Amino acid sequence: MSHPERDTRRCIVDAAERFFRDIGYQKTTVADIAKSLRMSPANVYRFFDSKKSINEAVLARFKGELEESLSLIIAEPRSAGSRLREMLMASYRINQARFIDQQRMQEMVCAAMEESWDAILGHIERYDALIGKVVAEGVASGEFRPVDPQAATQCIRTAMIRFQHPLLMAQCARIPGPSAEEMIEFVMAGLEQPKTGA
Amino acid sequence: MSHPERDTRRCIVDAAERFFRDIGYQKTTVADIAKSLRMSPANVYRFFDSKKSINEAVLARFKGELEESLSLIIAEPRSAGSRLREMLMASYRINQARFIDQQRMQEMVCAAMEESWDAILGHIERYDALIGKVVAEGVASGEFRPVDPQAATQCIRTAMIRFQHPLLMAQCARIPGPSAEEMIEFVMAGLEQPKTGA
Repeated sequence: MSHPERDTRRCIVDAAERFFRDIGYQKTTVADIAKSLRMSPANVYRFFDSKKSINEAVLARFKGELEESLSLIIAEPRSAGSRLREMLMASYRINQARFIDQQRMQEMVCAAMEESWDAILGHIERYDALIGKVVAEGVASGEFRPVDPQAATQCIRTAMIRFQHPLLMAQCARIPGPSAEEMIEFVMAGLEQPKTGA
Repeated sequence: MSHPERDTRRCIVDAAERFFRDIGYQKTTVADIAKSLRMSPANVYRFFDSKKSINEAVLARFKGELEESLSLIIAEPRSAGSRLREMLMASYRINQARFIDQQRMQEMVCAAMEESWDAILGHIERYDALIGKVVAEGVASGEFRPVDPQAATQCIRTAMIRFQHPLLMAQCARIPGPSAEEMIEFVMAGLEQPKTGA
């Protein structure tokens, strides 16, 4: 893709994200997005074949930023436990900043869950691959118990869902429950080898 | 409340539950419920001041059955770990039987989350009290680690939410992840004292 084309694509995704945040996914039309960019709808359709495709691009960019943050943590020269704690905390903070108090962004994700399930599954697979890498390193070094890294990763993701899922972040804020830090420590207690000599 | 009054109340709750399951909470009217019982709406309103109150009664009965099942397990002469596993599994099975493949029942719970938050909180408090009792027993006997029982109970409930929340039970069925049994074992690994001499 040439530079101008990449820039146009990015402008469309930027504009779409603003509309999804301000008036919601359902109410946004491709014509709205085009008009705000002084483009014809036909020009937008040259880049994206549907509103659903634009939504997938918005979500992919957001998830790409999250995956990038996790990759940076993975590369740090620290124990697996320390990196895993920070990755789980970073996932929570990034999702929270994006979704909490932003009901309309939840609408965008809910739409993706209805319309773009393959894209959602792809993000989950990449998330699991990142978490699973650190779990496997911790198991290999003996820092973690000898669990199956893939199975443990899925359990960790499932245990932390209240701190990741846009809808639950809103609902569970009203229920007595652990902070993200407390939940991470609870999860790590099942994963880390008991301290010897304690 | 006299017997006939209690019976009428129960008939209204039965009929409401059928309507909520068959046509959904939103589309059901108090007039529908009354008509199916050959009653006047005014008579239904003698027992329940609104559809919301009927929904609370449907939910209270269901949650009462769940709490009854958990109480029976608590009373069994078995280890805390064994009882806690079975309580978590029973909660999952009972919720699953009620909600899975029954999108309309999810609608009923979602309506309660919007309209009857105090009732939802009450159910969560009673659930936590039941789980917390067994956690406290396990801590007291040394079978579990020396955790704070209330905080650990909230973590356990949060970790298991994918197997309890009507919406998540449907959504997560399409995501690679642990079975309820695998998730329970993951949770228990963080709670139980490491086996000595293993």
